[in-house]
Amino acid sequence: MRILVVNPNTTASMTEKAGAAARAVAAPGTEIIAANPAMGPASIEGYYDEALAVPGLLEVIAAHGRAAPGIDGVVIACFDDVGLDAARCLSAVPVVGICEAAMKTATLLGGRFSVVTTMPRSIPALEHLAERYGVAGRCRVRAAGVPVLALEDPTSGAVERVRDTIRQAIAEDGAESVVLGCAGMADLARALTAEMGVPVVDGVTAAVKLVEGLAVLGLRTGKTGGYAFPLPKPYAGDMARFAPAPQP
Amino acid sequence: MRILVVNPNTTASMTEKAGAAARAVAAPGTEIIAANPAMGPASIEGYYDEALAVPGLLEVIAAHGRAAPGIDGVVIACFDDVGLDAARCLSAVPVVGICEAAMKTATLLGGRFSVVTTMPRSIPALEHLAERYGVAGRCRVRAAGVPVLALEDPTSGAVERVRDTIRQAIAEDGAESVVLGCAGMADLARALTAEMGVPVVDGVTAAVKLVEGLAVLGLRTGKTGGYAFPLPKPYAGDMARFAPAPQP
Amino acid sequence: MRILVVNPNTTASMTEKAGAAARAVAAPGTEIIAANPAMGPASIEGYYDEALAVPGLLEVIAAHGRAAPGIDGVVIACFDDVGLDAARCLSAVPVVGICEAAMKTATLLGGRFSVVTTMPRSIPALEHLAERYGVAGRCRVRAAGVPVLALEDPTSGAVERVRDTIRQAIAEDGAESVVLGCAGMADLARALTAEMGVPVVDGVTAAVKLVEGLAVLGLRTGKTGGYAFPLPKPYAGDMARFAPAPQP
Amino acid sequence: MRILVVNPNTTASMTEKAGAAARAVAAPGTEIIAANPAMGPASIEGYYDEALAVPGLLEVIAAHGRAAPGIDGVVIACFDDVGLDAARCLSAVPVVGICEAAMKTATLLGGRFSVVTTMPRSIPALEHLAERYGVAGRCRVRAAGVPVLALEDPTSGAVERVRDTIRQAIAEDGAESVVLGCAGMADLARALTAEMGVPVVDGVTAAVKLVEGLAVLGLRTGKTGGYAFPLPKPYAGDMARFAPAPQP
Amino acid sequence: MRILVVNPNTTASMTEKAGAAARAVAAPGTEIIAANPAMGPASIEGYYDEALAVPGLLEVIAAHGRAAPGIDGVVIACFDDVGLDAARCLSAVPVVGICEAAMKTATLLGGRFSVVTTMPRSIPALEHLAERYGVAGRCRVRAAGVPVLALEDPTSGAVERVRDTIRQAIAEDGAESVVLGCAGMADLARALTAEMGVPVVDGVTAAVKLVEGLAVLGLRTGKTGGYAFPLPKPYAGDMARFAPAPQP
Amino acid sequence: MRILVVNPNTTASMTEKAGAAARAVAAPGTEIIAANPAMGPASIEGYYDEALAVPGLLEVIAAHGRAAPGIDGVVIACFDDVGLDAARCLSAVPVVGICEAAMKTATLLGGRFSVVTTMPRSIPALEHLAERYGVAGRCRVRAAGVPVLALEDPTSGAVERVRDTIRQAIAEDGAESVVLGCAGMADLARALTAEMGVPVVDGVTAAVKLVEGLAVLGLRTGKTGGYAFPLPKPYAGDMARFAPAPQP
Repeated sequence: MRILVVNPNTTASMTEKAGAAARAVAAPGTEIIAANPAMGPASIEGYYDEALAVPGLLEVIAAHGRAAPGIDGVVIACFDDVGLDAARCLSAVPVVGICEAAMKTATLLGGRFSVVTTMPRSIPALEHLAERYGVAGRCRVRAAGVPVLALEDPTSGAVERVRDTIRQAIAEDGAESVVLGCAGMADLARALTAEMGVPVVDGVTAAVKLVEGLAVLGLRTGKTGGYAFPLPKPYAGDMARFAPAPQP
Repeated sequence: MRILVVNPNTTASMTEKAGAAARAVAAPGTEIIAANPAMGPASIEGYYDEALAVPGLLEVIAAHGRAAPGIDGVVIACFDDVGLDAARCLSAVPVVGICEAAMKTATLLGGRFSVVTTMPRSIPALEHLAERYGVAGRCRVRAAGVPVLALEDPTSGAVERVRDTIRQAIAEDGAESVVLGCAGMADLARALTAEMGVPVVDGVTAAVKLVEGLAVLGLRTGKTGGYAFPLPKPYAGDMARFAPAPQP
Repeated sequence: MRILVVNPNTTASMTEKAGAAARAVAAPGTEIIAANPAMGPASIEGYYDEALAVPGLLEVIAAHGRAAPGIDGVVIACFDDVGLDAARCLSAVPVVGICEAAMKTATLLGGRFSVVTTMPRSIPALEHLAERYGVAGRCRVRAAGVPVLALEDPTSGAVERVRDTIRQAIAEDGAESVVLGCAGMADLARALTAEMGVPVVDGVTAAVKLVEGLAVLGLRTGKTGGYAFPLPKPYAGDMARFAPAPQP
Repeated sequence: MRILVVNPNTTASMTEKAGAAARAVAAPGTEIIAANPAMGPASIEGYYDEALAVPGLLEVIAAHGRAAPGIDGVVIACFDDVGLDAARCLSAVPVVGICEAAMKTATLLGGRFSVVTTMPRSIPALEHLAERYGVAGRCRVRAAGVPVLALEDPTSGAVERVRDTIRQAIAEDGAESVVLGCAGMADLARALTAEMGVPVVDGVTAAVKLVEGLAVLGLRTGKTGGYAFPLPKPYAGDMARFAPAPQP
Repeated sequence: MRILVVNPNTTASMTEKAGAAARAVAAPGTEIIAANPAMGPASIEGYYDEALAVPGLLEVIAAHGRAAPGIDGVVIACFDDVGLDAARCLSAVPVVGICEAAMKTATLLGGRFSVVTTMPRSIPALEHLAERYGVAGRCRVRAAGVPVLALEDPTSGAVERVRDTIRQAIAEDGAESVVLGCAGMADLARALTAEMGVPVVDGVTAAVKLVEGLAVLGLRTGKTGGYAFPLPKPYAGDMARFAPAPQP
Repeated sequence: MRILVVNPNTTASMTEKAGAAARAVAAPGTEIIAANPAMGPASIEGYYDEALAVPGLLEVIAAHGRAAPGIDGVVIACFDDVGLDAARCLSAVPVVGICEAAMKTATLLGGRFSVVTTMPRSIPALEHLAERYGVAGRCRVRAAGVPVLALEDPTSGAVERVRDTIRQAIAEDGAESVVLGCAGMADLARALTAEMGVPVVDGVTAAVKLVEGLAVLGLRTGKTGGYAFPLPKPYAGDMARFAPAPQP
């Protein structure tokens, strides 16, 4: 089995971290292909970065999907679930975002949970995802107040602030589990689970297991509704290369 | 006052239709600038088209926002409210999508309402918007089964199918008003209101009046939360020209 | 265009303030008719006052609606949206309440918002309206602890308490905008927007722009459902003069 | 114990029917006082009638509440729960509306239930009450298409239409119980329960038992929030007699 | 009338307390039969205790239901509403849980209310019931931090902690009434109502009045849907005695 | 890895079918232990059967959990998610129900989905689970009208009725995927996916992959809230053997 883990920003160290986290949990027979776009923002902090990351993300998926021997599933490794709907239309194989993976995994472990993300500006987007995924009533989103790229710098103190925010969530929110709200925290989950006394869920690893599961079950995105393949039509200008081809 | 009406697809006849509809309702002192991107899909039917339309849309907004004497508000003239969140981050002036405009306007006119859109594949996206805008409990979405561009062709029979679908909605959904679910129907609302005996709402014109209102009231998008200006950071490759500049 | 702004209590200074606020934002061609009932409570603080204000409110609307040359729309200038449903039945033209106007306007400006009203006893009624208007999940209601009529007295310190409560809402609620929860605060919005760094929405002015917009769009209340004209029938006693006449 | 059953319209035959239904279920020691206002509409069909019925309703409650030896609770015998919030503010004793009584009773008997009311125009108001009472997800509202006063006329065929609509609800809605959506149907519930094979709930009798229960339990409306007694203040014109007196 | 009040745990002192509370509010002609199972947990604190209490509970109901002259209704006197759905299937007469009774009674008395229960581990189960009963938006659940059986020991200080938690709820939650979240608090409601200045609702007594009401109204659980009588089928092993008999 | 798949009814052929389905998707290193209780109902059709199945289910889990070398996770193979909360309290390892597994898996594959279960009496219970799992707005439950044990009899025509009901769901519900609502259908999913043109999800296999994933991720049920281990306390009578032991 081959799973494509796409980091939709262009920071290679985050791609490597996500790939390593994915490989650490992948089944013996699973190959993890970690990739990031050649174009787009260096990190995704807010809706504008999100929107401009999507074409690059779709390009990565199209490139791997068309190449032999193909892939069996896709993980979108950004906690905003950037481009998830478009990727599901584009791809024939299952696609899972790490926010939905982490939130749905948390619902298997307890009642209320809290998400600890990076910057306060991301809170509204994640609250909206929580609502969309049907968990808004049991989920609180908190920000540690650290920029995404500070997680790549061990001297930044970012991890300690994440740790403090998790402690607050446990103490004040009635959280029975905690979700790490950024792909850049993927390496922290196991140690924090041991340290904090509650399950701490990382989305990258959770998504890898969900995609593996779907592939084994032979389940792919339904193509009769909102996730139907794109209709063939002209795309103008710089976007011409994205124009959907007729489905065979 | 100057309002930018962006049709996020690249079909000029739809841009003209939206511009004409906007001008027909604009206040005497309001200048309507109707524009569409130079790049992207010819029509927007589903999430993939949506995603690839957004960079072009943002480019249009940035171009007009930076030029003197600037604009006072933006209407996004695609019923999927394509790129609305990103546009709100980018822009200093209010931005309104035509789906939210039409749905919120319908709530001022009665209880239940129905949306009549083009293709069935758009129903899930519009149902999701209805949920996001807090109207899911009073809104049903129906598709007339016509491609977007068929609305540009008077010989296609598309308008008659829209009319039939509206009649079904009134008869079966308890709809006290009807929302036209595509910018390409902007020219039909007034006649259908007279014909159908219920208010028929078009999003382009509804959005123009909302944006005008916000501008007169001196209200702009809040910038302290999820719609804060993008943080300055490097953007790679073809997207480099979108890299956010530091706010002054 | 002629818009009737009805203050449903009998305090003329509030009527004047609402009228002035309305005129300040009305389009050049719009005439604002500010009026209040001859009967009913001097201020509306709670459900009992609300209920007894409604007949007077309806009387004002009927008087203006029947007189030539008629009106093009109605604003109900009390933040409890007193009598809104009944007024929509009575009137052939659009009717907008200032709570719904302000709340729906706030949803165009950001995610979460807070309402700052006068007395704690009003909180449940406004929370209920927030639920009805589909914004309960993103709205918190706070009371400044000032009686309605204290807003008419510059020496009461009421405005300073409103200001403090707004600051709390911004600091603690994640509010990206603020709604002023009483028609008596209509004169404060513009200055507070500048001072607070977030958009501050007043319902009277927001409602005027919504009604103007509906009138331009040719949209009136749907009459095929819950807002159908009242059926002709006998009304007894003091209410006999309210008996609905047969629709022509 | 003395319970005031107020029919908020002025049709004496409906008052008598409600009183008789109430007496048929009241506990041995309970006296039922059935009354209707001297002023207001002859029947309540829509929001306009509702609004104009309230002052008369409040007058009836005030009259009985002030007279020795007082009353122990109030039932508002109109299925729109007309004036319920205002009555709760006015009164020191518990007040229950027949819609809330019937809906909450139905939730004790099964999962989904359907309401069968009189005219289609009442559906939106009842759907709104269902939402307010937290039962919207399990409740469907249907109209039999009979005017309220036709229920008073045995030759009108109205009861047969109610019966047919109940049968439809059972067959199509998954209704495990049925609620009669008009006080004028109060005499039908017991026979229909036997005939239809599902529990059929009438609001007047349900409300009488709830009020009796609250009185025995020593529970009265909470007065620290939205249902606090009205504040003393001037009321102008014809409404002057309703001006709240200071609480002792 | 005969009402069976089942305490589903095996602590006889709690059964006696529930029985006494029930008798104090029962109508003159009502006989209260208080009983508890011969098997199962001594107290119910969490889902595991709940599950193992149910067979004993059902055994008690079956024993009394089959004996002449039968019972007219059942109260399940544990605040988790243990076994409520199963009991409704088993029994021909109405069955009410004390949590649903208390929560639905509280909605007749004001807007927001708070539940004060025993141990924090019970909060998720009660929040889930609040959601199921349609009151989650107006209800907050707090724990006093006292074990259930401490309520049976006057020297434990448990009642004082309940009192403190009620005070917090009134001060911080906007609670207009308070619900006691354990059958072991049934004796406290009346005194706390007087002391706290808000209505304090006990579920045992509330449920008795609801069941009495249903019985007088001739309303029983609907048997055409989820609460149909169990289908006859073999039950193996120790559970064989529970095998449903064919309905006559 | 060892996963315990418990069929909570006592029909061995269903246990074998669930075990075979589980083994067909388990990872190479995973041992599936399929078991059913020695006591309880032969099939689970409604709340009464559910309740009486739980003690046997818990006994199976306790037996395997205490035996060396222990288990790494538990699947409850009944679509009502019988005893899920209690099992989570009892067990140190993750526990997943097949309804929640299937519903959450379906949300990864499309928007709306339909559940096809056996008997109409199960619909309310499954609708309630859909609400609890946050998917009620996108899920419709249908019954094929076949008894559970008919699925074990190839001559019963049951599978054909399931097939017809799936076709209806696709045609009428806007379902983009379908969930099989009974463990006894576990063998049908793969063939139906191929035949129906939409993904068809079986809960047993979905749950196995979820539990495997949780085990690999090192995630177990949170024990600080509602799923804390049972408190040690006396259990009386036949239930004495279930009395929780003190946690080590």
